[in-house]
This record gives sequence, structure tokens and C-alpha cells, in this order.
Amino acid sequence: MAKLWGGRFELESSSLLEEFNASILFDKILWREDIQGSKAHAQMLEKIGVLSKDELAQILQGLESIAQEIESGDFSFKISDEDIHMAIESALTKRIGEVGKKLHTARSRNDQVAVDFRLFVLRNNKEIQTLLLDLMQTLLDIAQEHTQSIMPGMTHLQHAQPINFGFHLIAWACNFKRDVERLEDDYKRNNFCPLGSGALAGTPYGNDREFLAQTLGFAKPTLNAMDSVSDRDFALDMLYSLSMIAMHLSRVAEELVLWSSAEFKFVSLSDAYATGSSIMPQKKNPDVPELLRGKSGRVYGSLIGLLSVMKGLPFAYNKDTQEDKEGVFDAIKNVKISLRIAKECIQTMTIHTENMAKMAKCGHLSATDLADFLVRECGVAFRDAHHITGQVVAYAEHKGVDISELAESEILSIDSRIKAGVKAVLALESSMNARDTLGGTSSKQTQIQINELMGFVAQRLKECNG
Amino acid sequence: MAKLWGGRFELESSSLLEEFNASILFDKILWREDIQGSKAHAQMLEKIGVLSKDELAQILQGLESIAQEIESGDFSFKISDEDIHMAIESALTKRIGEVGKKLHTARSRNDQVAVDFRLFVLRNNKEIQTLLLDLMQTLLDIAQEHTQSIMPGMTHLQHAQPINFGFHLIAWACNFKRDVERLEDDYKRNNFCPLGSGALAGTPYGNDREFLAQTLGFAKPTLNAMDSVSDRDFALDMLYSLSMIAMHLSRVAEELVLWSSAEFKFVSLSDAYATGSSIMPQKKNPDVPELLRGKSGRVYGSLIGLLSVMKGLPFAYNKDTQEDKEGVFDAIKNVKISLRIAKECIQTMTIHTENMAKMAKCGHLSATDLADFLVRECGVAFRDAHHITGQVVAYAEHKGVDISELAESEILSIDSRIKAGVKAVLALESSMNARDTLGGTSSKQTQIQINELMGFVAQRLKECNG
Amino acid sequence: MAKLWGGRFELESSSLLEEFNASILFDKILWREDIQGSKAHAQMLEKIGVLSKDELAQILQGLESIAQEIESGDFSFKISDEDIHMAIESALTKRIGEVGKKLHTARSRNDQVAVDFRLFVLRNNKEIQTLLLDLMQTLLDIAQEHTQSIMPGMTHLQHAQPINFGFHLIAWACNFKRDVERLEDDYKRNNFCPLGSGALAGTPYGNDREFLAQTLGFAKPTLNAMDSVSDRDFALDMLYSLSMIAMHLSRVAEELVLWSSAEFKFVSLSDAYATGSSIMPQKKNPDVPELLRGKSGRVYGSLIGLLSVMKGLPFAYNKDTQEDKEGVFDAIKNVKISLRIAKECIQTMTIHTENMAKMAKCGHLSATDLADFLVRECGVAFRDAHHITGQVVAYAEHKGVDISELAESEILSIDSRIKAGVKAVLALESSMNARDTLGGTSSKQTQIQINELMGFVAQRLKECNG
Amino acid sequence: MAKLWGGRFELESSSLLEEFNASILFDKILWREDIQGSKAHAQMLEKIGVLSKDELAQILQGLESIAQEIESGDFSFKISDEDIHMAIESALTKRIGEVGKKLHTARSRNDQVAVDFRLFVLRNNKEIQTLLLDLMQTLLDIAQEHTQSIMPGMTHLQHAQPINFGFHLIAWACNFKRDVERLEDDYKRNNFCPLGSGALAGTPYGNDREFLAQTLGFAKPTLNAMDSVSDRDFALDMLYSLSMIAMHLSRVAEELVLWSSAEFKFVSLSDAYATGSSIMPQKKNPDVPELLRGKSGRVYGSLIGLLSVMKGLPFAYNKDTQEDKEGVFDAIKNVKISLRIAKECIQTMTIHTENMAKMAKCGHLSATDLADFLVRECGVAFRDAHHITGQVVAYAEHKGVDISELAESEILSIDSRIKAGVKAVLALESSMNARDTLGGTSSKQTQIQINELMGFVAQRLKECNG
Repeated sequence: MAKLWGGRFELESSSLLEEFNASILFDKILWREDIQGSKAHAQMLEKIGVLSKDELAQILQGLESIAQEIESGDFSFKISDEDIHMAIESALTKRIGEVGKKLHTARSRNDQVAVDFRLFVLRNNKEIQTLLLDLMQTLLDIAQEHTQSIMPGMTHLQHAQPINFGFHLIAWACNFKRDVERLEDDYKRNNFCPLGSGALAGTPYGNDREFLAQTLGFAKPTLNAMDSVSDRDFALDMLYSLSMIAMHLSRVAEELVLWSSAEFKFVSLSDAYATGSSIMPQKKNPDVPELLRGKSGRVYGSLIGLLSVMKGLPFAYNKDTQEDKEGVFDAIKNVKISLRIAKECIQTMTIHTENMAKMAKCGHLSATDLADFLVRECGVAFRDAHHITGQVVAYAEHKGVDISELAESEILSIDSRIKAGVKAVLALESSMNARDTLGGTSSKQTQIQINELMGFVAQRLKECNG
Repeated sequence: MAKLWGGRFELESSSLLEEFNASILFDKILWREDIQGSKAHAQMLEKIGVLSKDELAQILQGLESIAQEIESGDFSFKISDEDIHMAIESALTKRIGEVGKKLHTARSRNDQVAVDFRLFVLRNNKEIQTLLLDLMQTLLDIAQEHTQSIMPGMTHLQHAQPINFGFHLIAWACNFKRDVERLEDDYKRNNFCPLGSGALAGTPYGNDREFLAQTLGFAKPTLNAMDSVSDRDFALDMLYSLSMIAMHLSRVAEELVLWSSAEFKFVSLSDAYATGSSIMPQKKNPDVPELLRGKSGRVYGSLIGLLSVMKGLPFAYNKDTQEDKEGVFDAIKNVKISLRIAKECIQTMTIHTENMAKMAKCGHLSATDLADFLVRECGVAFRDAHHITGQVVAYAEHKGVDISELAESEILSIDSRIKAGVKAVLALESSMNARDTLGGTSSKQTQIQINELMGFVAQRLKECNG
Repeated sequence: MAKLWGGRFELESSSLLEEFNASILFDKILWREDIQGSKAHAQMLEKIGVLSKDELAQILQGLESIAQEIESGDFSFKISDEDIHMAIESALTKRIGEVGKKLHTARSRNDQVAVDFRLFVLRNNKEIQTLLLDLMQTLLDIAQEHTQSIMPGMTHLQHAQPINFGFHLIAWACNFKRDVERLEDDYKRNNFCPLGSGALAGTPYGNDREFLAQTLGFAKPTLNAMDSVSDRDFALDMLYSLSMIAMHLSRVAEELVLWSSAEFKFVSLSDAYATGSSIMPQKKNPDVPELLRGKSGRVYGSLIGLLSVMKGLPFAYNKDTQEDKEGVFDAIKNVKISLRIAKECIQTMTIHTENMAKMAKCGHLSATDLADFLVRECGVAFRDAHHITGQVVAYAEHKGVDISELAESEILSIDSRIKAGVKAVLALESSMNARDTLGGTSSKQTQIQINELMGFVAQRLKECNG
Repeated sequence: MAKLWGGRFELESSSLLEEFNASILFDKILWREDIQGSKAHAQMLEKIGVLSKDELAQILQGLESIAQEIESGDFSFKISDEDIHMAIESALTKRIGEVGKKLHTARSRNDQVAVDFRLFVLRNNKEIQTLLLDLMQTLLDIAQEHTQSIMPGMTHLQHAQPINFGFHLIAWACNFKRDVERLEDDYKRNNFCPLGSGALAGTPYGNDREFLAQTLGFAKPTLNAMDSVSDRDFALDMLYSLSMIAMHLSRVAEELVLWSSAEFKFVSLSDAYATGSSIMPQKKNPDVPELLRGKSGRVYGSLIGLLSVMKGLPFAYNKDTQEDKEGVFDAIKNVKISLRIAKECIQTMTIHTENMAKMAKCGHLSATDLADFLVRECGVAFRDAHHITGQVVAYAEHKGVDISELAESEILSIDSRIKAGVKAVLALESSMNARDTLGGTSSKQTQIQINELMGFVAQRLKECNG
């Protein structure tokens, strides 16, 4: 199959080369950005006198009709077109004739792919921010209802201290807040326009790169043409930020899986977001959180994959870089659906606060309160208070009860430094509400945290929509 | 959409769940193995009396007609079918009625997917072995022609010692030999049949697992049902072996890129395996080796992706494991085409032995021979010989010539321990042929290595085809 | 600092270069292998006439005295020595004078590091096999005691079917069996001696490589010198096998963490293998399984790290390869201690079979038995039986009881196809023992599996010790 | 060995547990931050009335004396101390008696390690920014000298268009600019103080967290205590940013290796930053760039390692997280020395502009200029101009000359659309200077880029030092 670049070639491409080399099967997803970039480039060419007003009109109209055809699903992508850039250019020339051939003046596929891919990544960056904010909103709405729902706070998956369920959801939400902020930073750091860089050295046509940047919505043109065609930091930044989102989701998902088990019974997933077994009729499986947890693997894989591709590549453009796209496309797609379904799954689950409360009564959750009582009321140094409390716990364990179930007299008999009044501090609710400093789990502090995050979400959503 | 497992469910699945959960869009590639497994299972059910001969016949015929429909491209896969197992079972029941529903007796999707995926991996294991052997054969055929073609052997990308080009190709081939052996080991270690394991605990139907293993071509049934449904070692072993192949190809590819540069000019790729530039008409780009080099990234990514998925998963089956397939499918596909095109690209390239020979004259390649001469003929300890040679090299560098171009008298004047006759040992061909022990680069030893590898390839190809 | 290789250099190394370049701080761990390799090399040099018997004796004695000094901790490693090879050679020359300088005849650091590192990896390969076998033995000993201890078998962390605890431990053991086999395969595939390859092309001294291979305990010499100095497959194979062990341990560890939680209470770790909290006196944390789970990360990291290093490296030796060692050393060390402590932690934990049995009564574990009863006794196709059972489960759920607690009359009233006698099949013990085919969970089959694995372990341990 | 947390424990820790569990051998590097955090905590305790002024003074003095002892190397770290927090607390109590035991009031090791590690990462963040700026400055200083030094600009490692060497160095510098900006973003996003979060839920002592944040130099306290103890985003952000730096360095290093080869000869490394061979006396090896290239592997490994550790971890703190540190410490150390030595190695290398200029005359570098001439002067559409130029190149190739060496008459005879005056546009210098738009390679544009980056570096260095 003869190629647009084939002037000096004496043999045609082998069919295996076409199959191996072509990116059209996956980079066609960039068609919107490719046409957007070509329109801006054509306008710029007219501005600097390479195209006449009439030629520009023909090209814009041609590109628009191609866009409509692709949108409607009627456009046929052929492997012999190699990539989306060639496919669109060659369709254009077929439609509008000779003038179509002028479009590629003063640009190269190297800067074309750089601008298309960057536009795609930046657009998705914004969309994913919105999905994160939606998920945060859902978490905050539920948290709002549960600032007094006591559950066992855990470390090492062991009961540690009583917290409220709203406070736990805030911890989840804080992770997604950082994800939003990380995406914002990525956006600003990469919001520069490579178009006009030519193959690697700029062009001799006097391209107006300020105009291109402005037209395409970038902050400014990139600084150096060689860097522009070889830089894939924007794609790696995206993959890293997606990996972090996937990692955070995997942690939330792990808890949903645990909480759905017969042993925990903290939540029940909605039938609409669970599945059954082909062989065991009683099963209701938490497939959604399991997949959310598992999806982290492929996103990590895409990140390390592109890091490996870029390792040791000489400047400027190398074909290896073509391997940058599929991983990014796949990661974006999977993280987007993950965020959407995480939100729906959490929104529709039933929360068994009664079971959480019941379990909070196991595991001596107020032991730290006992130690703190010893420090504050009995003048014992913390390290000693810790030891004394350990002995009270050991006593309760042997007896098979929670420390809160011991009689005051029993407690007092264990160590002479323990003062009367100790039993009162062991109630779970007072234990929770005692943690009343900034960031603490008291109902009051939890509400403050909710308010702060609500403000964050509202402001960001306003900006996104504004 | 009502599900086969939906008996106890009160709400239908949300459409987002269907999209998120379904694997049919990628696991349909397993249709052959799924039908193969179902046929064996049906035969076994007849053998243990669950199916009558007539029912078996209907099922086999039904499965066969589905196979033909899929093969011909007429079968329509629907996302509501969730996965290839449900798609085929539900098509079967539609075709042959009630008896179709009996097929799923005494098995679970958990062991079904385990056997399908394992069959697929093992089949591709064999196919990739053959592709590796083909590539080795190509390398050996070229090596055979070049056991006397001198080139600069390099370490640190610096000229080191003269070698022949055939010897260099053998080094490549040794990597692929280990890849074949690694795949052989993987095959044997994983060639066990999980079918009959049920959901995780076996079945109460008296499944004849020896029969299943034999019918499907496995060495034996797996040992423990719970392990059988949770084990993905066979998939990871495949991804690791593919990563190693991709890594080896990336090293070969790096050399092809270097050798195609204007600075090296050791080889020219065929026009049929190179591409041009959209903007620079003189360019001939080594896209094939560049992509070969870059492909390693995605294969590594799939390996680390699945390792991450499996990390910390409790037993037995978890839905996370569904994330095991796409990475394996993608890696297999990319490594297969990589091996095929590497072979064709190497087969058709032009080798510029004259340029290799010319460059071998730069860089004092016979310096080690001088040192060795000092040891053997002049009784100098090696470390001292190394120092003296260093001085001769420094002298030649200052003069701007290769040490082989120095006059004998010049050399003798540098250190009194150097004996007459030294100039003769500096000829490149004698230097190369002096390395005549096992594994060395002399033409004779190179031929011995070629013969050994030819034997390896011939024997393996015979086994594969036999 | 003047270098052994410094003959032609006019400037001394910068101190930053020394620090950056030196590997002595980590490769000193290879001192045993380096001395072992040097002894074999010296013996070979005497055999081919490069050294006299007397010179050999001096060298062997010198090397032996260095070995003793290192063993005793008195040897001082200096960064200016660069690496273990230079450190030992230079110590040797200091001790025995001129003859020491002859040792490096007919070899290069490139083949020296290749042989040292390979010997180290192969030795550890064997040691890790033994540790795996020890862990398997521990699991089998416990399994032996628990072939009748009923617990809930899970998929998706949901109760699925009743199994026995011994059967569960066998599933763990099967993973470690594959790890042993993988290491065995690695050993055989890499058990070849690179020594005598010189820098990359062999040597002109007539090295007797068969002798070297035999003396050092390898099966044979490697085939091609250039491959020998650039091949790091043996190190990657090790890192992959270690990653798999770490992954398997992480899965076991996840279960130990879950089982130690207040919600599960299936096991209690020994105080000797758990830790406390600095602030919460009641806590008993499963640090050991948590670290076992977390260790997988660093081992995966070392694997992907070396894969990245090797990607796109031209032949033959490049300094990048120096980055191969620390990851391997770290992974070996961490996996060895992980295997040892996993064994001790499991050996000493208390197993709460009573809690397992209690939990097995939740979750309608015998639902599949009901479906199977419908198939076998009532002539219902499996898919229909699945639906009917789903309805029985839904009925029991609404009533808040397990299906085994329903009266027979209640069950019969749900669907007319259900026959009398149904209640009897729902007992957990009969459910477990009904799964009595190869690989199944019946006590009898579990014992068969234990026996098979006991045989495997015994045979391998005999070989290791023999 | 009895533990500070051992109150309720009946068995002492096994020695293997101590070895496995202890982090003291690597987290002792955090001693500065641990003491800094303890001092701030003590001051806060005094402020809220838990400590008297006198007790505070004793504690501060005790901590200071420990700091001095560690600084001087006299402090002995024992594995039985588990971690740096316990080591310092227990030393404190030994020194100042009972009052030392009060220090741990109102805090947990969970928030202590969180604050120590974060302080360490943020401090190194700043230091690495400075090292990046230093390297940029070096590149800019050299670029300044070479805005007119013509070299072959490459894509696909094939000669593409003439550029100047300064322009190439700017491309490198742009990568490091983004690295600085990424670190700045990381800093701001993570500059929050977790201290005062307690174990996971806050404390009941009324900790003044605003005071802690301010004293320790953070922007604010973190929002939620549970998030604070389980968040390791700051460490992952650091590992990702380090991976990007390592990746960028690997690309620079690849070019240094290529350019140092006998085939390129674009640069010679200083003897002070190169090494020799133990066997080949003529060798001068680019070990520094090779190691720079290879170091990327370990940094990638640490990133993926920690991503794996964090995957699927339930909230809040889990011991797995202890695996976060060694990878970060190692990556920081290696990237810091890499940046320092990259700077020195580049600063001291000799640049062979004459060889670059010579090579620029190979490969028809001005072919694009011919095509552009056809567009601008002859009214040919770009795609046709590309074809015509391809034919001219093919003609020159057959004749064995560069297109710039063809006579004008020869060129004109190839296609009638080519106009007179064509030969003049083919000179390399005019070709380079023709690319005179923003980001282009003309000497003028290169200087503009240098100025812009000089401004960036100067401003940032001023901030760092200010």
C-alpha cells in the first residue's frame, strides 16, 4: 500500500509491518482532538498567509464533514491509513482535492500527535475531577447522617478505639480530595501547546504559536520544539494520578468486601450492585468492590509500562513512544467507570449501624481511655498507665468479658494507683466524644470536617460547571 | 436483565454493573476452549450416569453448532450474557431446550474459567515456542554466513575486542534458547486439569477427573479443589516468560536501531520493514525495532499488573481475578507479532560487513592481545602487562592512530619489557581467531556454537511438529 | 586513587565517581563465591601451564588466608577498591607479592562477576527450597489434625460451602509446592558456568572451561562468551520466583490477619509472634502477617527494577548491569526470613475450631447440596434447581434463619418439585463429606492430598540433605 | 526482651520476630525529625498543661543531648528498641527518669511516624529541587556557548534536520524544569501536619494541633486523624517525582553513552568521570552515564513496590506500611547522587563540535528545506513537495552523495516543478536559522529559550536560599 511518506521508498510495506506499525485501531479515539488541532492549524496557516481565506473555508468545511461522518459511525478506518492523522488528512484530500494537501504545511505528525494526545489527556483530567467530586459528595451526604453512629475504629484490623461511621467516611473522602488536587496540579503543569514544533526543530514558515495555543485553549506554547515532540510527562502524570485514584479505591473496596462478609455484616450491597453464583444459589457476591480492588493492577501496569518505554530513549521522537497511548486510554476508561460505580454502589448499600455498634463493644475499645484516666486523674506517667491498663485488659480477657463490663471494684483491685470513678470513662460514646480536638472523631469535630469538605466540593464543582 | 444466578435476587442488575462486571467483550476469545471443556464435561457426565447417551449427543451437537456459528462470525455476543461461559450455555439451552440446562451439573464457573484459561495459555505457550525456534533458525542461518566477518565487539558501547558477526548473532540466539526452555518448564509445571473442582470444594457427583484430564490433554488432575480455583500461577508464569522474551527482543532491537544509524551503518533495513516521515522526505525510520523495543513496556506492565491483583487475595476465588485475562491476551498477541516481525525484519536487512570491518580498525581492539603477548611471551604478570599496554594506547591516542598502526620500533621504545614480534599479534583476524576455547569468538568456535544451536532447534521443531 | 585499570588515564577518579561507581559496599556479600571462583581459576591456570605448581600453592594459600580474615570480620573493605573482585585481588598481591598479579590472567571482571553472582543465586535457590519444604511440612502436620474440623469455605469472602480446615491448609501448601518446582526449574536452566568467557569474546590462553564448570559444581560451561557476560536471566528468574513466593505468602498472610480479627476469631497468634500498641494497651497486633503481606511490594519492585534495567541494553556487558545485585540480595534476604517466620507463626498460633464450626452454620452453606438433591433425587435440571434453591434461601433470609433450620414441611411448600427427605442432606458434615472425588474436601480426600504432599516433601528433603 | 507495649503479653517476643519486625536499622535515619517532632510535642504538652515548665525543660534538654550523641556517632541503636521512636523515648527515660515517660502522652507511634517521615520527605524535596536547578544551570551555561554549533537533530536516531547543540541541551533542561515544578506541587499538596492524630481518632487531651503545625513549619494540621495515620500519598508522590527525574536522567545518559562511542565521537568524558577495564587496557568506559541510566530501574521498583503495598489496605494504620520507608530512602539517596554526578560529568566533558558538524553533512538534513522551498517558492502543495523531495533524495542516495552536494542542474532535471535558486536553501546554517519561530532551533530562538530558563533558575534559587 503506497504511503504519503513513500517518495523515496522502493519496496512497499510488508503487510505484517502495516499490522505491527499501525496505531489507527486505537488512536482513532483521538479523532475529535485531531480535527480540533487541524482546524486551529488551518486558521493559523491562513493568518500567516500560507492559505487563502477560500482555501481555509474549504478545509474547515471538509474537516467538519469528516467529523460528522465519524460521529455518526459511518467513517471507515483502514489499517493502511496507519494513524488517525493520516486517515483524516487522506479523507480530506479525497473530499476537497488539491487544497487538502496544503494542510500539512508547517507541521509534522510528531507535533500533531503531541497536541492531540495532550488535549485528550487534559479533557479527561477535568472529567475525572468531576467524578471524584461526585463521589466525595456521596460520601459526605452519608457521613452527615452518621456522625453519631458508633463503630469500632481499627488499626491492624484489630479493634482500637470507638469512632463514628461518618468520621470513617471522611477518611475515605480525604484521599479523593488529594486526588482532585493532584489532577489540578497536573493540569496546570502540562497545559502548554506543542503544536508548531514541527518534526523537532520548529518550522521555517513563521508559525504563530501564540495563536495556536490560544485557539486550542492552552495557557501558552511550549518552550522548546525538541522537548515538545519527545515529552510524555503529561501522559505519565496522568497515569500516576490514575494509579493513586485506583489505589485509594482499592482500599475503600477492601473495606466494602470485609464489611459485606458474614463475619462483619456492617453493610449489605444492593442487589442491583451485587451478583450471584452459577452453582451456589445462596451467594450474594460483592463483585463490584472486588473489581474495584482488582482494577488497581492494570492501572499500575500501565504506569510502569510507560515508565519502562521512556527509560533510556534518546531525543527527540522515537517510535517507541507510540506505546504511550493504549495504556492511558485503558486506565482512563477503567478509572472513570470505577468512580461512577463506586459512587452508585456506596449510595445504594444498606448500613447496619446496629451491627457496628454491637461489635464496638468487643475488644476493650476504651482501654486507651483508661490509660488516659490514669494519666490525667491519677498522676501516672503514660508509659506506666499503659502497663497498668494492659494488666486490666489481661484480667478481662481471662474472665472472657470486655473491660467495660468489669465492676469498678474489680478494676481498683488490680493496681493501687487506679482511682475511683474509673468505670464512668469506659462508655463508648463518651470515649468517642472525648476525642474533640481538630481532626478528632467526636461528633462535633466530624461535623467540622464534613463542612470543610462540603465547601471544597461545592467550590470545585462551581468552577467546573462555571 | 434477569440472570441465570438470579433466583434469590429482588432487584435487577443496574446497567452500569452489567458494563463494569461483564467480561464477555474480552473473554469471548476463549470460546474454543470453553466449548472444548464443555464437551469433555458432558462426556464425563454421561460416563458417571448424569446424562443419558442421547442427552450427551444432543449437547455435543448443540455445542458443535455453536462453535461453527462463532467460527463463521455469525454468533452475537451480548453484554447481558456476562461471560463466555454463560453466553455459550444460554445459547445451548435456546437451541436444544431443557437438556441444555443439565450441562452445568457438577461444575462451577470457577473451575470452568480455570480450565478454559489454562488451555488457552498452554496452547499459546506451544505456539510461541515455535515462533522462537523460527527466529533462532533465521539468526543461525545468517550467523552461518558470517563466522569470518569481523566487527568490533563492544562492552559499555565502546570498542573492546574484534569478534565475528556470526558470534554476535549467537549471543542473541542464546537468549531465545533460554526462552524456549523457560516455556517448556512452565508447560510441564502447569499442565494439570482443574475441571471437576466445583466452586472450591469438589462436587458430590463423583466427577471422573482422571477422565477429564485425559480428554483435555492434561498430564493429570490438579491436587486440591480450592487451590484449583484460586491459582493463577500459570498465567503469571506466562506473563513472566513473555516479559523475558520482550526484554530480549528489546536488546536486539536497540542494536538494530544503533546499527541503522548514520553513525554506525552496520545494517540497512529493507524498505518493506521501515517507514518514512510525514515531513522529512529523506528519512527512513527503523520503526520496527523501535516498536519491538517499546513493546517490552506493556508486557512488563501486564506482569506487574497481575502480580498486584493477586497480592493479598484471600482464598478461594475472588472476582479480582477476572482482571487476569486482558493483560495475558494482550501480551500474547504482542509478543507473537513481535517475534514474527523480528524474524522478517532481520531476514531482509542488508548487512554492511565492510563498514563493520572498517570500524573494527578504530579503538585499539587488539590491545588485550598486546597485554596477553606481554604475559605469554615476555613473562610479565598480567596486571603489569595491562599497565604497559595502557601506555602504548595512550601513546597511540596522542598520535591519533590505532595501536595496530604503530611501528614495531615505536612500541618497543615505550617499555623495555616488550619483546620483538609484537606487531604481528595486533592483526584483527589473528586476534579474533586466537580466542579459540569453548564459547570463544574464533571462527571455529563460532561454528561449533552454531552447530549446537542448530541441533537444539531441529530437535525441538521435530517435537513440535511430531 | 590510582586504579588497577588506570594505565592510560591522565586524571585520577573524582571522589564522587568513586562513591557513585563502587559496588564494594554491597557486593562484598559475594566474597565466598569470589574466592571460590578465583581458586578454581587458579587451578585451571596451573592445569594449562600459566601458573607453576608453586605459584598455584601461594595463590591458594593467599586466598584462603583472605577468606579467613573476612570470615572473622577483620578484613577492611575500602570504597577505593571499587568491587569485591578488586578488593580480593589487591589484598592478594599485597600478601603474596608479584605472583598475585598473575591471577587475573585469562579472565575479566565481566566473567568473574557473572560466575560469582550466579553461584550466589544458585546456592540461595537451594536454601530457599529447603525453607519452602519446611513450611509445607508445618502446614501438613497441622492439616493432618484437622481433616474433620468444619469451617466455612469462602469465595468472594462470602460463605460458600462447608470445608475442613485441613483442606484449606492444603490449598496453601499447593502454592508452595509450585514454588519449589519453579526453583528447581530455574536451577537446571541456569546451572552453567560463564567463567572463561573473558571480557566478551573468550580468551587466547586455552582456558579449560570444562574443568572450571566441574570444579565449581556447574552442569556445563555456557555456550557463548558474549551471552555469558551479558546474560542476567538467572537473576531475573530468581526475582520472579521470589515474587511468586512473596505473593503466595501475602495471600496466606491476608487470611491470618482476617482470621485474627475480632469479627472472625478463627485463630489467635502466639504472644511471641504478635506485638502491642504504644498507646492502646488492649491491642494485640498481627504484625507478622501484615509484614509478610507487605513484603511482596519490595520483591515485586526488585523484579520490575531489574527488568527495567535490562530493557534495551545493547550487548555485551554494560555498567547498568551493576544495578542487578542489590535488589536480588534484598529480595533473597526478605523472602528467607519471611518463610522462616511464617512457619513459626503458623506453628504457634491457636486454632479456634469451635468458632469456625459456629460460623459454618451461617450463610446457607448447604444450599448447593439442596440444588444437587433436586438434580439427583427429583430429576430437575441444574439451572432450575438453582432457581428453586434461590427461592428457599430467600424464604429463609426473610425469616432470619439458616436454610438448615427450616422445617421439611416449609421447604416442601416452596416448590412442588422438591421431594421428601430434603432436610437430611443439609447437615454440614454430610455436605462436606459428599465432596468425595479427587481434589474434593471430604475428610478422606483431604487425607489423600496430605499423603501426596507428604511424599513430595519427604522426597525433596531427602534429596536436599542427601 | 520486654517491650514498652508489653503489659498484657504473657510470652516475650521471639528473637526472629524482633529481627523481622524491627525497623530501627533503617528508620534511624529519621532521628533528626523524630527529635524535632518530640520537641514540638513536648512544648505543646506544656502549653496545654500536661507538662510543667520544668518538666518541659528536662525533656528538651534530654532530647538535645540525645541528638548530640547521635550526631557524634556515639549513640548505639539496638534491634530490641524496634524503631527510632522507641529508641529515643527509651534513651530519654534512661537519662531523665520518670518525666521521660510523660512524653508519649497524647500521641501514638502512628502519628509520630507519620510526622517524622513527612518532615524527612519534605526536607529532601527542597534539597532535590536545588540539585535540579544546579544541573539546569550547568546545562544553560554550556548551551549559551553553543547556540551556533551545528549538529544533526535526530528522530528515530536518524538524521532529521540541522539544529544547534545549545538547542539540544535546552530540551534536556526543559525536562528538569518540569521536575522542579512537580516537586513544588508535591510540597504544597502534602505540607500538612499529622501530629496530634493519636492512634487513629484524635486524643482526649485537647492537643493544640495548630501550634504543632506552626512549630514544625507546616502550612496547617491535616483534616482527619484516621486519614492522617493511613495516608502515604506524600511518600508515593515523592517516589513518582523521583522516578520521573531518574527517567529523564536515563534519557540524557543514553545520549551521553551514544555520543561517547567511537561511532559518534560527539563528546569525550573526562578521565575523572570515566573508568577503565580490568582486561582491556585501551578502554575508557562511560560508567557514569551507564549507571545513571540503570538507576532508573531501582527507583521505578520502589514506586511500584509501595503502590503494591498500599493496594487493598484497610484503614487505618497497618504494619504493611512499615515497608514504605526503605524504598523512599534508597530512591532519594540515589537520585541525589545521580543529579550531582550528572552535573559534574557534563560540566567536565569535552564537546567535539567539529565531529557534530561533520556528521550534520550526512543524511540529507536539508531535505525538508527543499520541500518547504517547493511549497513556498514553487506553489506546490506540501504532500506533493514531499514526494518530489523523496525522489531527489533517492537520486542522491544512488549517486552516493548528500543532496546538498548535487548540482542545481541535476536537481532541476528531476521534476519540472522545481524552480531555480533551490541549491541555496540547502546550506545547513541557513536551514537551522530558518526555524525562527517560538521554540524553534534558530540561534536567536535558542537564546530566547536560554534566557527564559535562566530566569526560572535564578528566581527559584533565590527562593530556596532566601
